[in-house]
Amino acid sequence: MYNVIGRNIPEEICGLGTLKLFDSYNVVKNTEKSKDRLRNSDRNKILDSLETAIKETGLKDGMTISFHHHFRNGDYIVNMVLETIAKMGMKDLTIAPSSLTDIHAPLINHIKNGVVRRIETSGLRGELAEAISNGLMNIPVVINSHGGRARAIASGELEIDVAFLGVPSCDPAGNANGYSRDNAGTSECGSLGYAKVDAQFAKKVVLITDHLVEYPNTPFAIPESQVDYVVVVDAIGDPKGIMSGATRFTKNPKDLLIAQTAADVIAASGYFEDGFSLQTGSGGASLAATRFLREKMIERNIKASFALGGITGQMVDLHEEGLIKKLLDVQGFDLKAVTSLKNNRFHQQIDAEYYASPDNPGSAVNQLDVTVLSALEIDVDFNVNVITGSDGVIRGASGGHCDSAAGAACAIIVAPLIRGRMPSILDRVHTVVTPGCSIDVLITDQGITVNPRRQDLYTNLKKANLPVVSIEELKAKANKIVGIPEPIQVEDKIVGVVKYRDGSIIDVIHQVKKDPWK
Amino acid sequence: MYNVIGRNIPEEICGLGTLKLFDSYNVVKNTEKSKDRLRNSDRNKILDSLETAIKETGLKDGMTISFHHHFRNGDYIVNMVLETIAKMGMKDLTIAPSSLTDIHAPLINHIKNGVVRRIETSGLRGELAEAISNGLMNIPVVINSHGGRARAIASGELEIDVAFLGVPSCDPAGNANGYSRDNAGTSECGSLGYAKVDAQFAKKVVLITDHLVEYPNTPFAIPESQVDYVVVVDAIGDPKGIMSGATRFTKNPKDLLIAQTAADVIAASGYFEDGFSLQTGSGGASLAATRFLREKMIERNIKASFALGGITGQMVDLHEEGLIKKLLDVQGFDLKAVTSLKNNRFHQQIDAEYYASPDNPGSAVNQLDVTVLSALEIDVDFNVNVITGSDGVIRGASGGHCDSAAGAACAIIVAPLIRGRMPSILDRVHTVVTPGCSIDVLITDQGITVNPRRQDLYTNLKKANLPVVSIEELKAKANKIVGIPEPIQVEDKIVGVVKYRDGSIIDVIHQVKKDPWK
Repeated sequence: MYNVIGRNIPEEICGLGTLKLFDSYNVVKNTEKSKDRLRNSDRNKILDSLETAIKETGLKDGMTISFHHHFRNGDYIVNMVLETIAKMGMKDLTIAPSSLTDIHAPLINHIKNGVVRRIETSGLRGELAEAISNGLMNIPVVINSHGGRARAIASGELEIDVAFLGVPSCDPAGNANGYSRDNAGTSECGSLGYAKVDAQFAKKVVLITDHLVEYPNTPFAIPESQVDYVVVVDAIGDPKGIMSGATRFTKNPKDLLIAQTAADVIAASGYFEDGFSLQTGSGGASLAATRFLREKMIERNIKASFALGGITGQMVDLHEEGLIKKLLDVQGFDLKAVTSLKNNRFHQQIDAEYYASPDNPGSAVNQLDVTVLSALEIDVDFNVNVITGSDGVIRGASGGHCDSAAGAACAIIVAPLIRGRMPSILDRVHTVVTPGCSIDVLITDQGITVNPRRQDLYTNLKKANLPVVSIEELKAKANKIVGIPEPIQVEDKIVGVVKYRDGSIIDVIHQVKKDPWK
Repeated sequence: MYNVIGRNIPEEICGLGTLKLFDSYNVVKNTEKSKDRLRNSDRNKILDSLETAIKETGLKDGMTISFHHHFRNGDYIVNMVLETIAKMGMKDLTIAPSSLTDIHAPLINHIKNGVVRRIETSGLRGELAEAISNGLMNIPVVINSHGGRARAIASGELEIDVAFLGVPSCDPAGNANGYSRDNAGTSECGSLGYAKVDAQFAKKVVLITDHLVEYPNTPFAIPESQVDYVVVVDAIGDPKGIMSGATRFTKNPKDLLIAQTAADVIAASGYFEDGFSLQTGSGGASLAATRFLREKMIERNIKASFALGGITGQMVDLHEEGLIKKLLDVQGFDLKAVTSLKNNRFHQQIDAEYYASPDNPGSAVNQLDVTVLSALEIDVDFNVNVITGSDGVIRGASGGHCDSAAGAACAIIVAPLIRGRMPSILDRVHTVVTPGCSIDVLITDQGITVNPRRQDLYTNLKKANLPVVSIEELKAKANKIVGIPEPIQVEDKIVGVVKYRDGSIIDVIHQVKKDPWK
């Protein structure tokens, strides 16, 4: 057979099989020269509206769409996309954002109207969480950890048909990042670590930006080779909300005391030597621990090899001071972290799979020496709840909690012994997110306890004259002050399913008891 | 059912299906603290030998293994791995390196002994190419373009069982790069753009390094999350050979004349305006074009938005001078490019899929204004041969030639009108790698010609008083000097199959005629 350029090609070659003939595919040239840096239409992916983009993706009833939560409580994207989809008349969608928060209350109506049928998320807060905890949905919400979500997406367990990703800077071909080099963007969020996984694996990727920049927008978090369409809107988020939430700098004296103790524990743990590594989860005491550790690092001439996870301004300070050599950033926690990602060569943006997936041949959490994590409740088996409040209502997020705890050689939980009128230590937490076998130390404002599995740590902390007691003693102390709380009353209906990072079910969340007076 | 931590989980939930119970998976903690920065054995992937690594990957007879060619003619990896595999007694392997060159002559014996049964590569040179051109193999070699290879790997058409990737720096977890930050490595090659695709898609990834560095080796070209094993050897390559090959700085007056003309053509093409973009392929005249373009850029106050592909020291100079804003680097062509990749924030390492795959929603070649490419032969239909010499023997590589030509708005071929005693312009090239429909201009030392498809370009060049003639006139000029060459005699046997970037067969390569006197 002859192909279109007159070359004689056999139909088949033994060992290579049937041959496909060259047929000028993909060589039609663009002869119209680009008029400006936005490139001509053959070379860019910009569509005129979100609705056009949704149509182009082929999105249909029953499909799965995803979002990222790097804009936190300033996110406009989820509501914007779902409003458009609702207007277009679609139904029965599964939404799989990396997390949801207060600003996403409009989802309640989309659930009621049948637009959204199922949710997979890391967390829920505010009115939406309240409504779901009270039985809004027919199918329980699936709670994933950040590493678990990356694993599910990469393995195909969670198939995303279309990812709608808000990006603070983007060029017409789709190279995108969480900041803008020209400093003219208003919605910077820093690392797009969670979004990177969606961009890589979703069947179709729509980027939504309010800040179009010149090609090529390098360095990029999301490469053009993964992007199908770009939509330009007036605003993708509220800058105030983007930098809000779990990442405040604490002034609470109880938090500061706990943070100071955390630094003492780390220093005495046996892991505090030159080249150690560190993660601090969200929450005031956890984030503040870095600050107290700084003095000890200078004192003992110790430098950390890296800090991982959500990166804070405090970590950036230590990095710029030379005390933390590298930053591995899956999520920026404040503006200083954003600026540092932009300017510091060794502040590395990483994706959630690299960060914490349990299924690939090695994620960064496995290299951690120490992680400092918060808790809403912890039980005498060291199981941790970070998802439901003392009333049983969902009010938090799984996040990277169980990932970091599983990976780190020393996983430290920090929590006040008593929160409001409720003890933090219980016989049985209402919801388990992180299993006790992966927790090593609990630090409260009233004392420290070590998981009995870790005699080595117990010995080290005792040697340093730290106030280590048994978890039963700490629990008794709390109960003496506030009594033993009544167990939370629940209905039979399951409203949430908590997945461990490997996809197995570690716990379920039941509907909270209906108020008989309502 | 109760899971191991005593939580009551239903077997099944309507809408979520069967539930898998949490069972302590992946939470067994590493209690042994790391002794030094090489980490303890639970946290690193270093195996004691290449043989152990090969065993661990589960490599078996008939499987496909891959390599990258960033070390060019200094590569030790292909020979090292195949020697080990041969000793282990394996047979019938397919090898799919990104390219092969003179140093890989030992493959001849592995083919004869049945260790290697099939080859996919971008190019072949030296004794191996000679032997294959003379019928060494039963199954023809498949020639892929760089973009076509990335497409084939990403789509699953080319399944790699094990990738053996030499890396100039690597930490114990597998974060690797093409240079070393401590400047203590001896084998720097710069961008690992081709290897990145293998790391992402191969079922198992073995990194081979001669320079182990502290964790985390960020920024990385290859992330630990894609790496299964690390093997440390004495040397992965010969520094002299790594920086050899197609990338020499030309002093040949004919090449310099052509390069000067190429700059004139670009300046007159209509694409030479602020923000234009550029690629120069390997070969003296092509690479030298940048130098002559520089003066015109300064003169007309024009800055390029980016340069793409194989990056040269000349491009780095222009970048550092502010004349080229961004560099997109799939392959470093010299040491200056390596150093720049290490130090310049806007010198971006890209993978071959981002660079040139025709199947993803957009690769960087599609954004090119101008590309300057070499040719061994070109015919009156503008079809280009860059793979077989005037004797029909394989002596080159497909590379990014057809990718860049298809993507660029203006694809320029540079070639001397006569090479040795052979004309470059023929009625019919011996082997087509790049189809004429994707070529716009041919520049020789004796004149310029424009593809009749591009009347716009013809008009622009004429207006600038450039010596544009028809390709038939150029061909006649050459024939007048050296005559019309005899067609190359070939056997029926097909020794090579040339794939276009979309995987279709654009041409085949026949065994060269046996010498009846031998």
